[in-house]
Amino acid sequence: MKEITSQKEDYAKWYTDVIEAAELADYAPVKGCMIIRPYGYSIWENIQRILDGKIKETGHQNAYFPLFIPKSFLSKEAAHVEGFAKECAIVTHSRLKAHCHDGQAEVVVDPESKLEEELIVRPTSETIINAMFAKWVGSWRDLPLLINQWANIVRWEMRTRLFLRTAEFLWQEGHTAHATAEEAEAEAQKMLHVYRDFVEGTLGIPVLLGEKTPTERFAGADRTYTIEAMMQDRKALQAGTSHNLGQNFAKAFQIQFQNQDGQLSYVWQTSWGVSTRLIGALIMAHGDDKGIILPPNIAPLPVVIVPIYRSDEERKSVCDAAIALQRTLPVKSYVDTRDQIKPGRKFYEWEKKGVPIRIELGPKEVAQNQVVMVNRVSGEKTTIQCAEFSRNIGTYLDQIQKQLFQRALEFRQKYSFRVDDYKEFQEKIEEPGGFLYVHWCGSSECEAKIKEETKATFRCIPLDAPHEAGVCVYCKKPSTIQKRLIAARAY
Amino acid sequence: MKEITSQKEDYAKWYTDVIEAAELADYAPVKGCMIIRPYGYSIWENIQRILDGKIKETGHQNAYFPLFIPKSFLSKEAAHVEGFAKECAIVTHSRLKAHCHDGQAEVVVDPESKLEEELIVRPTSETIINAMFAKWVGSWRDLPLLINQWANIVRWEMRTRLFLRTAEFLWQEGHTAHATAEEAEAEAQKMLHVYRDFVEGTLGIPVLLGEKTPTERFAGADRTYTIEAMMQDRKALQAGTSHNLGQNFAKAFQIQFQNQDGQLSYVWQTSWGVSTRLIGALIMAHGDDKGIILPPNIAPLPVVIVPIYRSDEERKSVCDAAIALQRTLPVKSYVDTRDQIKPGRKFYEWEKKGVPIRIELGPKEVAQNQVVMVNRVSGEKTTIQCAEFSRNIGTYLDQIQKQLFQRALEFRQKYSFRVDDYKEFQEKIEEPGGFLYVHWCGSSECEAKIKEETKATFRCIPLDAPHEAGVCVYCKKPSTIQKRLIAARAY
Repeated sequence: MKEITSQKEDYAKWYTDVIEAAELADYAPVKGCMIIRPYGYSIWENIQRILDGKIKETGHQNAYFPLFIPKSFLSKEAAHVEGFAKECAIVTHSRLKAHCHDGQAEVVVDPESKLEEELIVRPTSETIINAMFAKWVGSWRDLPLLINQWANIVRWEMRTRLFLRTAEFLWQEGHTAHATAEEAEAEAQKMLHVYRDFVEGTLGIPVLLGEKTPTERFAGADRTYTIEAMMQDRKALQAGTSHNLGQNFAKAFQIQFQNQDGQLSYVWQTSWGVSTRLIGALIMAHGDDKGIILPPNIAPLPVVIVPIYRSDEERKSVCDAAIALQRTLPVKSYVDTRDQIKPGRKFYEWEKKGVPIRIELGPKEVAQNQVVMVNRVSGEKTTIQCAEFSRNIGTYLDQIQKQLFQRALEFRQKYSFRVDDYKEFQEKIEEPGGFLYVHWCGSSECEAKIKEETKATFRCIPLDAPHEAGVCVYCKKPSTIQKRLIAARAY
Repeated sequence: MKEITSQKEDYAKWYTDVIEAAELADYAPVKGCMIIRPYGYSIWENIQRILDGKIKETGHQNAYFPLFIPKSFLSKEAAHVEGFAKECAIVTHSRLKAHCHDGQAEVVVDPESKLEEELIVRPTSETIINAMFAKWVGSWRDLPLLINQWANIVRWEMRTRLFLRTAEFLWQEGHTAHATAEEAEAEAQKMLHVYRDFVEGTLGIPVLLGEKTPTERFAGADRTYTIEAMMQDRKALQAGTSHNLGQNFAKAFQIQFQNQDGQLSYVWQTSWGVSTRLIGALIMAHGDDKGIILPPNIAPLPVVIVPIYRSDEERKSVCDAAIALQRTLPVKSYVDTRDQIKPGRKFYEWEKKGVPIRIELGPKEVAQNQVVMVNRVSGEKTTIQCAEFSRNIGTYLDQIQKQLFQRALEFRQKYSFRVDDYKEFQEKIEEPGGFLYVHWCGSSECEAKIKEETKATFRCIPLDAPHEAGVCVYCKKPSTIQKRLIAARAY
């Protein structure tokens, strides 16, 4: 069994090791692509199920749009071209021919099947979806149009990391059209808050809500909102974004509606998304040197019961008690009765898989109607009566959920600094790292210089940032926005 | 509002019209691709949810594998090359360049981004999944490996039809590996029966279970099982398939395990799938000239309540009563209070959308605590007490579910014929069409001739076909399998 590298020794290696140890994902034989293994995928299924419920509760409907986008569509919105006409998968042919080469079956591309127009595997679906919106929207009665899609996305990344940056990933993308600018703005903000509630409440990861600077904006948006989380190596991770697209795509794709006065107007739009990188965030927000730790609200398996026995006779009474206990639990649990594996090895396995509560049950406990409950976060062991455990399991899980959130929140607070001096900025970003709250003159030159010299980027201008005069941490000119923004190195 | 073409006038046109009328799907601006609209997608979500439950109940776990398959992988299994090295989407480049042409932003493929090895957008995932199985399987303890994937698939079809045959479609594909041939065979048959239970019980479509002839087998399988349904134009539709792959892929991808005696053996495998074409089957098994008809067990909306009123005063009392009634129902329902649309128009809309039960509620009904219940299948109207309706809604829906299944079953029986004479075969397949039970000598030449001359294919050898001697309907040589098989024109 391979040891997990400690976080201290090499955080990047630790990250890869815990994914392997928990069997979450694997690199594919295709460059930059990943395989999401059953345990990792069951986390994604929980994310989908819970978030999908919230997306539907707020009035959105799911639909499915094509994987392929005609190349010309990407050119229709000027800023979008710049942002997305780069690394992507391009389909140029539509037929293979099998032929025999030295007695070996071989496959070649049929040159005669060259497409008239190349197709792009969607790097995001604004263009193809808005081409359809133009067809579906006619009058104010058709608005708002509130659509969501769960899909796979391809961006040809050169430097990939499981869950965080892969050539193909899974996500949901919301796309909406509204009659007024105000409604679109309200929608973009509403979905940002839906993401916040989900990431904080379900994944137990505290986030900061903010607006991106123009440099960091989505290609084609008027405003991009983000939720930013701090990982345990003090780097930032963008956990979700929500864009107010204004009328940019509406004008590019001619999405017009007849308003109540009979006038033709362009719609106002938003788009928003979260992806499988949330699993990367889960790992790096909560994990420890023993493996991942899953918050109970997202854990595929909140409780595991490990019977401990030596003789066949003990086996029977302990396993019977374990199954009887399982029947009393209102949450999903698993009784690990595998005979060829010793209890210590089982403990170790379930720790690697991040199961929040482990129950140890031996002949002594059975005799006294007790269980030993082990908390995955603190490692704390508590001996309690079976009935009490069954009755309070919800509370215990809630406590772990809160414990994880609180620990991550305190960590972020500990590594958040107000910095006014550039030398201090350069030092702090190196060690200990974290979120540096700084003033900025508003010029993209200063933003670029900071990035070049420190690898830190402006993560966002927090929505709740207080009004405050100050001077740019880089050039010392006065702040134009008069609010501090967050600079950090990021995933 | 566009009229729906009658089935009698033009069945193919009827099919397209009902899809448009119910807003199930739309053609995409990409050749052969479709957009699944929210109402159509909500049917697919129900299919996914219910079938996913059955797949998990039988011990399978979901995972996700890459969209792209290296070209060389397709060549590894000899029969698979022949079957799948044909029409597919081929990715050859990985970068676009934006450039300015006559003042217009334009996008071109960067020739320098040509891939060393072309990637195929998955037409099915045996090759990529089995490459991973080879990595994951080591010992008999790792078996059986029971994996399922929900994914999008691309096959470059020239002649497309919404849901039935599109370049991109959605499906699930199960892939399993077993220690023995017997287990693999049992698995292939088990999943065929899971499909049967789902298609008959949930979609209300009777199917015949059978085995494909070698010609119609999946490329790379030892045996292919199928469930075949009859559509209202008497054509067959293959609703799901399950393949016993033997050791073909195991040998091609070197999937070996150490058995309990310490010997290395190749695994035995299966794969099985159903797709969005099930929605096409639903439409053509149950629909009528008013639109689609959805069986209650799959309908996104089993009940719609339409309040009928003239004055504002009536509006209030009728809508209040409708909402009060809705609250008493144990199934999902919708109260259609849209003011700008007349009741007749609403009836018509919900008929097009195939809602199984419509409730009409006017001032007269409210006064007498009654509702008018309209059955979408028979059109029958029944006036009943509110309380009775609420109490028995489950029964009413069950009756409609059974009614649809029974009607489809009788239809299939009516158009199933035992045919021994080829002239009769040619006539019957033309008019009225249907399932022709015939004898066959076993030669693929006769099979090909029949297809060429009549457009009928051998759908399957039914699993429950009685042993019976006979002579080939085409060449008159004795039947080798001594069972009748089903010939039909098919989608």
